[in-house]
Amino acid sequence: MRILITGGAGFLGARLAREILQRGQLAGKTVQELVIADLFPAPPDLLTDPRVTSHAGAMLTQGDLFKSGFDGVFHLASAVSGECEADFDLGLRSNLDSTRLLLDSLRASGQVSRLVFASSVAVFGPDLGLPLPNPVTDTTLPAPQTSYGTHKLMLEYLVADCTRKGFIDGRSARLMTVAVRPGKPNGAASSFFSGIIREPLAGVSTTCPVDTSVSHTLASPGNTVRGLITVFEASREAIGGRLALNLPGLHVSVGEMLAALEKVAGPAVRQRVRFEADERVASIVGNWAKASTAERANALGLHADENFEAIIEQYIDDCRTRPGYPTNALDGLTA
Amino acid sequence: MRILITGGAGFLGARLAREILQRGQLAGKTVQELVIADLFPAPPDLLTDPRVTSHAGAMLTQGDLFKSGFDGVFHLASAVSGECEADFDLGLRSNLDSTRLLLDSLRASGQVSRLVFASSVAVFGPDLGLPLPNPVTDTTLPAPQTSYGTHKLMLEYLVADCTRKGFIDGRSARLMTVAVRPGKPNGAASSFFSGIIREPLAGVSTTCPVDTSVSHTLASPGNTVRGLITVFEASREAIGGRLALNLPGLHVSVGEMLAALEKVAGPAVRQRVRFEADERVASIVGNWAKASTAERANALGLHADENFEAIIEQYIDDCRTRPGYPTNALDGLTA
Repeated sequence: MRILITGGAGFLGARLAREILQRGQLAGKTVQELVIADLFPAPPDLLTDPRVTSHAGAMLTQGDLFKSGFDGVFHLASAVSGECEADFDLGLRSNLDSTRLLLDSLRASGQVSRLVFASSVAVFGPDLGLPLPNPVTDTTLPAPQTSYGTHKLMLEYLVADCTRKGFIDGRSARLMTVAVRPGKPNGAASSFFSGIIREPLAGVSTTCPVDTSVSHTLASPGNTVRGLITVFEASREAIGGRLALNLPGLHVSVGEMLAALEKVAGPAVRQRVRFEADERVASIVGNWAKASTAERANALGLHADENFEAIIEQYIDDCRTRPGYPTNALDGLTA
Repeated sequence: MRILITGGAGFLGARLAREILQRGQLAGKTVQELVIADLFPAPPDLLTDPRVTSHAGAMLTQGDLFKSGFDGVFHLASAVSGECEADFDLGLRSNLDSTRLLLDSLRASGQVSRLVFASSVAVFGPDLGLPLPNPVTDTTLPAPQTSYGTHKLMLEYLVADCTRKGFIDGRSARLMTVAVRPGKPNGAASSFFSGIIREPLAGVSTTCPVDTSVSHTLASPGNTVRGLITVFEASREAIGGRLALNLPGLHVSVGEMLAALEKVAGPAVRQRVRFEADERVASIVGNWAKASTAERANALGLHADENFEAIIEQYIDDCRTRPGYPTNALDGLTA
């Protein structure tokens, strides 16, 4: 198989790439080539694998690559929520136009690629004057409150229509917020959900922009990658519909996250988080779904992480064993 | 006020233009200028009104016009369902790209235009393996089964996001199938719902591509124009949400339509309709919503046509009194 991962140099995309390379196959077929398209080159460990090629540059410049014929595509590349709110045009270009180019190019290749589109729980929000259903389900009417969520939703429907037309074999999976992410904070409004765990573990003080009662649905990187691969490998019948499905997530409050941090890493680590309200972030996050269900994903054998302690422990283990995690990521644990 | 109607030379757009000109005002303010943008020039009767200017050409060439500043916009221009199914790229250009240009240009004008986007009941359809709710409501999860319905839905969400950002004051109204339309059949799969009334009344034999049990939700042109103007004039609070609302429609079967035709025009007229199955049309129409409710539109004072006889009578009256109806439109009545 020849596989494309857009956004494959990013944290999640690279982890997905490593998992696919380690498995060596997808849906029972050997992966001969793994193509990574991203603004940036693929991480060094991926480039050492002879199956990997890396194409750095904006998606809008990669039409010829996308036309070259793929058996499978994981489309993860996206401008994130904070970026899209700050720059409306950038959001439309990076999300809508880039995905249009990808879908047009796959169709032009003449090969019907199986494609997983990484959508987001951010498609959900309360419509003006109406409460948001809690939990949100696979059949909740989306009413996104961000441009990012709007783009994801529009593209879910475009992917479904291209699938109906037989241009691709597409399926959209709504990712929950992924935590704990390594590295620096990014432009996503949800960035702090990782930051309040990552920074204290590294021995760095950090701020939390919302209060302890704010809750959200999270998934570990490992569980998220498992979800993407499972959705890719599932038959169309098993997917159970053309529309997007929710990936499973763990519903947890900021207070519970910090209690888990204290349990796993001790009170000194937890005390590195102080609260400093940020209205911009709070207003974005406050309009997101709280709890969610994932019946169709459950039927594919996917389940939420067991608890938030397990998510923190996965991060600590990743820091010790995986590429892409800074060597000082756990300095706060031994401090 | 300076008002723009895209698709304003079409049947519905021109009728909307005439209604606005006759009223002389919208939302309590005098209409000084009515700009009609359409592939074709505005009909002659509209061009005689000094308030009207007509700009013929593809929407994608009209960016400068759209940037010139409007108090209100009715966005009706669209490729129709049959065209979009036949030419996927044309559909995306005519619907998605053209509307993007319109919205970008309005935003660039610096004026916050009030905008009514003419969406469609075609956003609804059954997801794979699931039945379509009957009736569909304002809060039914859309699962369009046509590219046309997909584009309308994607644009509802883009209009909502542009409104959330304060670029426009947008609202989307889902039109029911409009009948009875004058003139020739068009590329819409729903075209026959008008044809089986219009052609017999003109004394012309015609075919019905589906059987008498097929039902659909229809609205007269007069009621549809009333709906568009009411949605335009409503306050944001009265609209009751950012998401699209259904316009009211009359749920009627082909059998009931033909019975009404016989009642209004006699058995000889009805007998000009014979049945000839068309799988392409039947498969599109069979996936559309049957009945629908319109609670939010009802709250604005909008209601469905009383019955199908009234819709036929409106058509007969229009043929006798309105511009744009051919002089031989009722030749079948007196034959």
